[in-house]
Amino acid sequence: MDSEDSAAPRAVTACLLVIGDEVLSGRTRDANLPYLARWLGEIGIQLREARVVPDVPQVIADAVLTCRQAFDYLFTTGGIGPTHDDRTTVAVARAFGAQVTLSDEAVARLEAYYGPGQLNEARLKMAHVPTGARLIDNPITGAPGFQLENVLVLPGIPRLVQAMLEVLRPRLTGGQPLRSATLRALYRESDLAPDLTRLVQEMPGIQVGSYPFFQGERPGVSLVIRTADEALLARARDALRRLLLRVGAELLEES
Amino acid sequence: MDSEDSAAPRAVTACLLVIGDEVLSGRTRDANLPYLARWLGEIGIQLREARVVPDVPQVIADAVLTCRQAFDYLFTTGGIGPTHDDRTTVAVARAFGAQVTLSDEAVARLEAYYGPGQLNEARLKMAHVPTGARLIDNPITGAPGFQLENVLVLPGIPRLVQAMLEVLRPRLTGGQPLRSATLRALYRESDLAPDLTRLVQEMPGIQVGSYPFFQGERPGVSLVIRTADEALLARARDALRRLLLRVGAELLEES
Repeated sequence: MDSEDSAAPRAVTACLLVIGDEVLSGRTRDANLPYLARWLGEIGIQLREARVVPDVPQVIADAVLTCRQAFDYLFTTGGIGPTHDDRTTVAVARAFGAQVTLSDEAVARLEAYYGPGQLNEARLKMAHVPTGARLIDNPITGAPGFQLENVLVLPGIPRLVQAMLEVLRPRLTGGQPLRSATLRALYRESDLAPDLTRLVQEMPGIQVGSYPFFQGERPGVSLVIRTADEALLARARDALRRLLLRVGAELLEES
Repeated sequence: MDSEDSAAPRAVTACLLVIGDEVLSGRTRDANLPYLARWLGEIGIQLREARVVPDVPQVIADAVLTCRQAFDYLFTTGGIGPTHDDRTTVAVARAFGAQVTLSDEAVARLEAYYGPGQLNEARLKMAHVPTGARLIDNPITGAPGFQLENVLVLPGIPRLVQAMLEVLRPRLTGGQPLRSATLRALYRESDLAPDLTRLVQEMPGIQVGSYPFFQGERPGVSLVIRTADEALLARARDALRRLLLRVGAELLEES
């Protein structure tokens, strides 16, 4: 990745751990990764890896340990609900060698949502967090997430995740956001590739992704430029546009 | 996971490595995981983990090494096209300590698709595979994937993946497929959870997933039972149905 050149400022990085048998069985299609990736990108945090793991505490704990060391932030989604298959809290506590304890603050938030005296044993489960954790407010259903050092534990339901990320925003420190530009053209990727490779080699400090597609039977290619440097972005965009026009590609869209 | 009980036959497992900056940037939403998960499930192979990694050869190589040791099969998608950002072949070779060499067989397949003498340097790149690799036919665009021991390297485009999985099917050895049943009911998950937990504890050898949803403003829950044992599946489904009716839930659907 050109963004790792020694000349570039250090990027702020994140990893996402998607927790849930339902994603690994193919029953549920994860929607949190693309949302989180774009949301983090806007505040200058680059999502660098994602993992999907089953509802198995030791597997979750091992992944938490590994990923929180490798990246600045680790987000987890899923597994903090009231049922027997919600095992994330226990697993994250295990990764930190922490106990799971009842949070009075979480009890108060859940009672505000469900009503006083309405916390059965399952709802009380959602008020348990690892010792030392800081709650993450859930403005929709009351059941909080929590933060332990650089690990941010969120539920699986996308509209809850999206609301809780807004709560989290002031706690996160991003770097310089990557800017991107996209050129879509009708042209076969493998015909463009030799010239494209040479051009990219002449422009250090940017990433250029090349993604083929078909419009009906006609082959097309999307070129996506990403860099934190606005001037570099403009130059790369011009150079790629010139290349596409020179080879006779039909330019569909530029954004 | 109850399927890991010592009494149960050993499960055949798989991991998916999704390779591509475009997924980690949120630009492209991966569609291969849910398809592969279901497809593998039907032939008795359980997808147990997935990872999404960027187009960085060393990161890819490290993930290949780790995941191919932890699971029976490792599938990779993405990064075997003709452009500079397609780095999977080099990375997989590195993980095996193998060289990348031109495959005459792959050249013949690509020439059949593009026409004789039409292989420029970029297309020839797609004819390079690690030494010792066995090709995986691509019935749609000619550019093959490859297999190296338990690692199966596929492109990123879903319709190519789906076609190439059919080519692969005879090479894969599955175990006993998991069977599943789903009950959807209108009832708040956290009200059901205490009884549900007790019921699941009384039924070893099955997995029961509980997934809350909203139908308009009304809370609902989907209960998904998974087991390889058909008789056990039927008993668990009956027990869960009785529980839902006993608490007064409105049963929406059973499948």
